[in-house]
Amino acid sequence: MFQYIYGRWRIIIRIPYSDLNFLNVMSFQQKYRTEQDTFGEIQVPADRYWGAQTQRSLQNFNIGGPPERMPEPLIKAFGVVKRAAATVNMSYGLDPKIGKAIIQAADEVIEGKLLDHFPLVVWQTGSGTQTNMNANEVIANRAIEILGGQLGSKNPVHPNDHVNMSQSSNDTFPTAMHVSASIEINNALIPALTRLHDAILEKSKSFANIIKIGRTHLQDATPLTLGNEFSGYAQQLAFGIERVKATLPRLYYLAQGGTAVGTGLNTSPEFDVKIAAEISKITGLPFQTAPNKFEALAAHDAIVEVSGALNVISVSIMKIANDIRFLGSGPRCGLGEISLPENEPGSSIMPGKVNPTQCEAITMVAAQVMGNNAAITISGSCGHFELNVFKPVLIKNLLHSIRILSDASGSFTNNCIVGIKANEKRINEIMKQSLMLVTALNPHIGYDKAAAVAKKAHKEHLTLKESAIQLGILTEKQFDEWVKPEKMLGPKSKL
Amino acid sequence: MFQYIYGRWRIIIRIPYSDLNFLNVMSFQQKYRTEQDTFGEIQVPADRYWGAQTQRSLQNFNIGGPPERMPEPLIKAFGVVKRAAATVNMSYGLDPKIGKAIIQAADEVIEGKLLDHFPLVVWQTGSGTQTNMNANEVIANRAIEILGGQLGSKNPVHPNDHVNMSQSSNDTFPTAMHVSASIEINNALIPALTRLHDAILEKSKSFANIIKIGRTHLQDATPLTLGNEFSGYAQQLAFGIERVKATLPRLYYLAQGGTAVGTGLNTSPEFDVKIAAEISKITGLPFQTAPNKFEALAAHDAIVEVSGALNVISVSIMKIANDIRFLGSGPRCGLGEISLPENEPGSSIMPGKVNPTQCEAITMVAAQVMGNNAAITISGSCGHFELNVFKPVLIKNLLHSIRILSDASGSFTNNCIVGIKANEKRINEIMKQSLMLVTALNPHIGYDKAAAVAKKAHKEHLTLKESAIQLGILTEKQFDEWVKPEKMLGPKSKL
Amino acid sequence: MFQYIYGRWRIIIRIPYSDLNFLNVMSFQQKYRTEQDTFGEIQVPADRYWGAQTQRSLQNFNIGGPPERMPEPLIKAFGVVKRAAATVNMSYGLDPKIGKAIIQAADEVIEGKLLDHFPLVVWQTGSGTQTNMNANEVIANRAIEILGGQLGSKNPVHPNDHVNMSQSSNDTFPTAMHVSASIEINNALIPALTRLHDAILEKSKSFANIIKIGRTHLQDATPLTLGNEFSGYAQQLAFGIERVKATLPRLYYLAQGGTAVGTGLNTSPEFDVKIAAEISKITGLPFQTAPNKFEALAAHDAIVEVSGALNVISVSIMKIANDIRFLGSGPRCGLGEISLPENEPGSSIMPGKVNPTQCEAITMVAAQVMGNNAAITISGSCGHFELNVFKPVLIKNLLHSIRILSDASGSFTNNCIVGIKANEKRINEIMKQSLMLVTALNPHIGYDKAAAVAKKAHKEHLTLKESAIQLGILTEKQFDEWVKPEKMLGPKSKL
Amino acid sequence: MFQYIYGRWRIIIRIPYSDLNFLNVMSFQQKYRTEQDTFGEIQVPADRYWGAQTQRSLQNFNIGGPPERMPEPLIKAFGVVKRAAATVNMSYGLDPKIGKAIIQAADEVIEGKLLDHFPLVVWQTGSGTQTNMNANEVIANRAIEILGGQLGSKNPVHPNDHVNMSQSSNDTFPTAMHVSASIEINNALIPALTRLHDAILEKSKSFANIIKIGRTHLQDATPLTLGNEFSGYAQQLAFGIERVKATLPRLYYLAQGGTAVGTGLNTSPEFDVKIAAEISKITGLPFQTAPNKFEALAAHDAIVEVSGALNVISVSIMKIANDIRFLGSGPRCGLGEISLPENEPGSSIMPGKVNPTQCEAITMVAAQVMGNNAAITISGSCGHFELNVFKPVLIKNLLHSIRILSDASGSFTNNCIVGIKANEKRINEIMKQSLMLVTALNPHIGYDKAAAVAKKAHKEHLTLKESAIQLGILTEKQFDEWVKPEKMLGPKSKL
Repeated sequence: MFQYIYGRWRIIIRIPYSDLNFLNVMSFQQKYRTEQDTFGEIQVPADRYWGAQTQRSLQNFNIGGPPERMPEPLIKAFGVVKRAAATVNMSYGLDPKIGKAIIQAADEVIEGKLLDHFPLVVWQTGSGTQTNMNANEVIANRAIEILGGQLGSKNPVHPNDHVNMSQSSNDTFPTAMHVSASIEINNALIPALTRLHDAILEKSKSFANIIKIGRTHLQDATPLTLGNEFSGYAQQLAFGIERVKATLPRLYYLAQGGTAVGTGLNTSPEFDVKIAAEISKITGLPFQTAPNKFEALAAHDAIVEVSGALNVISVSIMKIANDIRFLGSGPRCGLGEISLPENEPGSSIMPGKVNPTQCEAITMVAAQVMGNNAAITISGSCGHFELNVFKPVLIKNLLHSIRILSDASGSFTNNCIVGIKANEKRINEIMKQSLMLVTALNPHIGYDKAAAVAKKAHKEHLTLKESAIQLGILTEKQFDEWVKPEKMLGPKSKL
Repeated sequence: MFQYIYGRWRIIIRIPYSDLNFLNVMSFQQKYRTEQDTFGEIQVPADRYWGAQTQRSLQNFNIGGPPERMPEPLIKAFGVVKRAAATVNMSYGLDPKIGKAIIQAADEVIEGKLLDHFPLVVWQTGSGTQTNMNANEVIANRAIEILGGQLGSKNPVHPNDHVNMSQSSNDTFPTAMHVSASIEINNALIPALTRLHDAILEKSKSFANIIKIGRTHLQDATPLTLGNEFSGYAQQLAFGIERVKATLPRLYYLAQGGTAVGTGLNTSPEFDVKIAAEISKITGLPFQTAPNKFEALAAHDAIVEVSGALNVISVSIMKIANDIRFLGSGPRCGLGEISLPENEPGSSIMPGKVNPTQCEAITMVAAQVMGNNAAITISGSCGHFELNVFKPVLIKNLLHSIRILSDASGSFTNNCIVGIKANEKRINEIMKQSLMLVTALNPHIGYDKAAAVAKKAHKEHLTLKESAIQLGILTEKQFDEWVKPEKMLGPKSKL
Repeated sequence: MFQYIYGRWRIIIRIPYSDLNFLNVMSFQQKYRTEQDTFGEIQVPADRYWGAQTQRSLQNFNIGGPPERMPEPLIKAFGVVKRAAATVNMSYGLDPKIGKAIIQAADEVIEGKLLDHFPLVVWQTGSGTQTNMNANEVIANRAIEILGGQLGSKNPVHPNDHVNMSQSSNDTFPTAMHVSASIEINNALIPALTRLHDAILEKSKSFANIIKIGRTHLQDATPLTLGNEFSGYAQQLAFGIERVKATLPRLYYLAQGGTAVGTGLNTSPEFDVKIAAEISKITGLPFQTAPNKFEALAAHDAIVEVSGALNVISVSIMKIANDIRFLGSGPRCGLGEISLPENEPGSSIMPGKVNPTQCEAITMVAAQVMGNNAAITISGSCGHFELNVFKPVLIKNLLHSIRILSDASGSFTNNCIVGIKANEKRINEIMKQSLMLVTALNPHIGYDKAAAVAKKAHKEHLTLKESAIQLGILTEKQFDEWVKPEKMLGPKSKL
Repeated sequence: MFQYIYGRWRIIIRIPYSDLNFLNVMSFQQKYRTEQDTFGEIQVPADRYWGAQTQRSLQNFNIGGPPERMPEPLIKAFGVVKRAAATVNMSYGLDPKIGKAIIQAADEVIEGKLLDHFPLVVWQTGSGTQTNMNANEVIANRAIEILGGQLGSKNPVHPNDHVNMSQSSNDTFPTAMHVSASIEINNALIPALTRLHDAILEKSKSFANIIKIGRTHLQDATPLTLGNEFSGYAQQLAFGIERVKATLPRLYYLAQGGTAVGTGLNTSPEFDVKIAAEISKITGLPFQTAPNKFEALAAHDAIVEVSGALNVISVSIMKIANDIRFLGSGPRCGLGEISLPENEPGSSIMPGKVNPTQCEAITMVAAQVMGNNAAITISGSCGHFELNVFKPVLIKNLLHSIRILSDASGSFTNNCIVGIKANEKRINEIMKQSLMLVTALNPHIGYDKAAAVAKKAHKEHLTLKESAIQLGILTEKQFDEWVKPEKMLGPKSKL
């Protein structure tokens, strides 16, 4: 890929993906500069801020291509970590000129301006070392640029000595994991779930007086209101939001300050507490330093826990969206109790064939989140000694789950829930046909006669009323007086 | 537990499980004998054939209690392995008197007569060593008894030197895993799935002429026959049986002969080939010695593979049973296209409320098998160096999946499938109401008029026929002539 | 099965499982009585309290056999529910004579005295209706017996009218699910995890001064103490306990009072609140009535949530037990840093071969819990409309996970953790050989010379000290003074 | 996104992803044309070939953004399907001028030239209808262009009437699923696994004479060769390849010809057979028409089956890569039996710290594939009636698994396996220290004395030889003669 920056616009020259693999693309780069690490020199595209270690990783881990790059929120969270580290390091003696340049460069990472300088895929070192180095290299080179130095010179800003000062991949990466997940949960997931919850609750209220047949075992049961049904969905989502929030206390603990093995070697005393406070300040979220850094590096149980909460939400969504598409099934040969908004052509000739495409999209998302949870569970269990080396796959899956759940919830809310309409006529018709209402006759004609009415109705495909009248047990008027579904919606004397 | 054997009957004296834990139960045993191993002496219930190592495991692994005992088919397969080993060992010099007593005792294990002498739970050594020793101890003591010796004396039959001759837990346990799973698949699972397949295929044939509405996205679609639908289910099961069979070649490979680490140390040359042949003779299944014993001890990919096939069958069953319960939903407010047999009271007063309980049981089984598959996947991935030490949990889950899939398939066949009846009147009614049939009018009245007919029908809740006649586009006779669902069941000229 | 009760002892006559299937066993019962339900009459073993509906289920769901019976804690929780219902119903007019007899019978269920009267397996109706009826029938017959009536007469205590009064399977079963899980978590799991945590923390303290090599990526890294490592494990468990507790608020919500579809039809006002209070009183746990009964019947997200917390604990345990067995690997060719207690013979001839069998058992348990979580996730997602009909499989898996996690934690604590010994000599030896300590020389001899020392040591298999002395860079005394692992255990000035 | 095409190069002008969401990007498009569908008119970017339905989907499913687009191999497979359909349709009367233009356009899709015209994400209609329409629209417009017509005019090539002739989304999408997965398995996965297998087998051969300690339960066991160990890995992969191949027969069945519900309505007789033959011709793979089209649309068991085989391969890879990183652990404080190639800096100062990064990458891939398998299992189980509407998530996960397994296998082979070196000195040293070799002394000095030698060695940290000589039991010469690990590598007389 070759590109120029014009202000906020980038111009990219790209060759067809199908003809060339990712590495070959590099060979189209006209200009390179030389970067070096302890392995020696290596050529790096001249217009990229990354350095030798990033370049090596690109070549050593040719797995999956661009769609498998580290997720954006993680990259941005690295900006947060590096910014906070520079701030704290200045209080411990880092040259302010260097520190401020790092902060400026880190801010650009936070704002997403430098995303194209983070080309590494998830399938790399399990500690994410190379992505930490990618951040160090990009920020160092950008800071060098800001200070008028030469890219690749490591002067006056050194990726390790300055940008990575008092840090290790082993504590920055898990910190960026927790920071990125916390931000996405607070900024995207909870708002999206809340909107979905609110939209369903709104429907629940507007459907409060629509009495319908209940269904248990998929079989006709006693009545309830359509509002009752939707209130159950709303409750599931309200609990879902509670569930996610209940996991956050442990997600707000940060590994930063543990450095290589959790002891904090090469940090200054209180570095861990100060950087957590700084990150908290930048993000507005209540991060604290982890009470035990050995746990924070070697295990990622907090990630597994959060994913578990998302798994429950997926379970809820699967139920809700399934119900909605079944209630909307038809137009003639299904349940047909509600109508979903028509967003795209269903059938060119058949009016009323509205495919529940939003339900389909969000249930697919739910299945994916459950799968991601399995990947996270396995990855979380595989740490050894001082380090879990499944960090990238853990955070990739978690951020993926958060993103698609958030987006799909938004789409489902806007393109489905808010447009749902109750087919009151149909709802009433089929409820009236139900034999379950016979229970309302018990107090008036006794159990045996009531059962006879129901049996005749079932056998001869009659309504209960028809059956009862034919049997001469009661009059139409009596039936209408006695059989009132609206009296079957709650505890006895409440109605 | 204390018990006497009277012929084929056992008398057990048991104290309530709820008051006592398993180990305390032991203290109610009146008589003990002393057994010993390299750890020293230990008291063993006098009427049990097991020895010191079994007893120690009982005390060290008090996890889950009796329901968690090693599955019966595995214990029986140990009988097969020990019998075969004795036979082959006699050909290498084992004293025939001892060999024959071992064979007699092993036969009793195979027949299930000694199951109460295998008290160990799954949650023990990951190599299943203690269950191998349990088998050695029980068979040795029973053989000693047969030969008139004294229980616990290890004379004239020694559990290690004779019963375990040329073997190691590390090769007997995986052999018993493959043998037990192969037997259960051939004797229980495939027959049960075949009966289910046949019953569904039979239904498919008997429903061959019942034309019904198709449903895609749960929405009304073009028609097909109820027989078509059931033929799809039959095909899923036919493929399912193929899938299981496709995994068997690797399940038929036996680890026996690899001994401790796969090298076959302490066996005689060709022991592996001969014992596989002997096991094949006993079981009637085409077992062969594994081509690579290192793989056979250190990995259990074959178990994971078989479980994967069961996972697919569960996926199939979930689809089939879901369809059946939805098609049977009602009696008034559901789809109501079929009726399921009524096996137990659904509702005391409402006739026709037949809960699809068999569907519910088998879909729960399907969910369990999927969960078992997850446990097997994780366990299979966790081997190290020369040994996978998740053997007991692997085989427990696999045999559990096989058993409940087999039993539930049988129950589902007998108590649900064979009794399904088509509600032809209802099927026909709702199909006739469908708007999808309008496509049949295109060639006769043109697309635009056909669409108008459909739109009016949808809007005014009419049938297509009513709509078309009201619009004056055609006559009732024409409609009946042109709109024939039976002409919409296949490629053009085929009909 | 045929059995007599002699005081607290039962005598059971059983025929070999291998020859007869479960139903045939029934035919050995000499005496029967006739029970009936809306389906008609059915023969029931004369010495059993169960009635017609239980008997029918036994015959219709011959899946898996006795090991698949409903878990004991669930049966006992049904005792709690029925007891509480009787109490509340008396306040609404239930005849106190009947109510008290129900309470007495329910207490026997709670105490586990009637477990043998609950023969039904998990694989039945997905609402658990038949187990609810089993409870109703057993309690009714036992109450009849207490009151001097005749078993099966439904007089003076009727299973439906009295025992099941104001209830439905659809609310009792989920209530029993929450009650049983809550009790098991509070009485078994949290205490077991707490003991495990405490034992590990104790080890952490006693190992506080043992400095050892750190390992990241399995490669030698900077030092830490063995106590640090164990403190990480303790933290994982402390968080694990927090995680479970964080899910309890939603588990403490009870469905009771929702009856068939969540509306509370056929209950009295406030019945739901009162019965939750009564259950809370019986159990000592803070149960409350669920804020939305539609959610409480149709979804079991709370079960999925709790299982998710157990899943995280399994992830933690997998890490901890893996570390411990690797640290204890050897005796000569492994890491050998710790020694595990020897509980059973490892190798008959090789001293020191102590197989980490407790680690193996508990990691197998962890894999099972992860698998159970998958089964629970799938089952939780499959509800439809007013009812989730995967209730039995959900609670079976959850209670299974709780039980084996609790038991295995106890076994692991007692038989492994408390007996772990540090091999200080070995730990010190290999740490001294490590090249990572070279970093301590940087401030004294500079980076370049330090690197030279390390390179020579690596190449020539020397210790750092040997290498440095051979290079003439420093003296032995200087080395010993400068290279102090104990100075590498934390932030700079802290040491 | 705005772009020009210069020959094979594209120039893209893009605005920073972080500032704008995907839809806003659209507003930067300067030129639009009007396309229409049954919903009415809609504005489409002038330089894109897609039409109204694609555009609607873009707006209705704003979920996940570009990384979530339909996988490339699926898009290319749509090219195959559309090409084959045009060919067969010409034999049934499609105007050859139109047919040939479609073929030319479809070829460009197959070659990947039009990938940027397929912007839709996976999270859309569960039948993939909109991606089928995307293919129809792009091919129609490109064919129109080829024939000199006007984009968006549907003349002379109509997306539905011509490109989608005799097809339905419901059969094209599953066909494209099977075609894309088959191609990727044959062209990428099997070759990559074969290369990995071969590289490991090669290592196995070159390590054939390196005798080392065996390890069971992670504890020292009897010896084997390093070649033996690697042969086990090779066997796992050989079986893995067999496993995948065993699933292909069912993947080679194509749904094409089933159209909307499986009946083949609107196709010509034999269309299904002919198009399968044509697809087989294009791809060189033995595709056949599915024996039952109802199964082929309503279930995707074949996808679940293939994923199950990949799941087993992941299980194998997890074992292999874990072993390799543990064998390579050190350099001083681990097992250190092998050295992995050093591909990037591990530690800047510590020589020999080679992080097993390739093992880490491929084990993360393995965890992901297991998670994908869970997502596929759930999605596969959720079909209803005539259609499974989890098609996109199914194929996305399967193709993802295939891609990352293939790529990671390649990377692991090239960057790890081929560079593995045995540390023979270390291997020999630790094996010689092992106490397991004492078993070789049994025949010479008897079990008791041998045990005494081992016990003293263990207690006093001696070698066996030192212990035996100190005990005066044998001479050094005798020891060397009797204790020969190379005699412990197989059955007795074989050595």
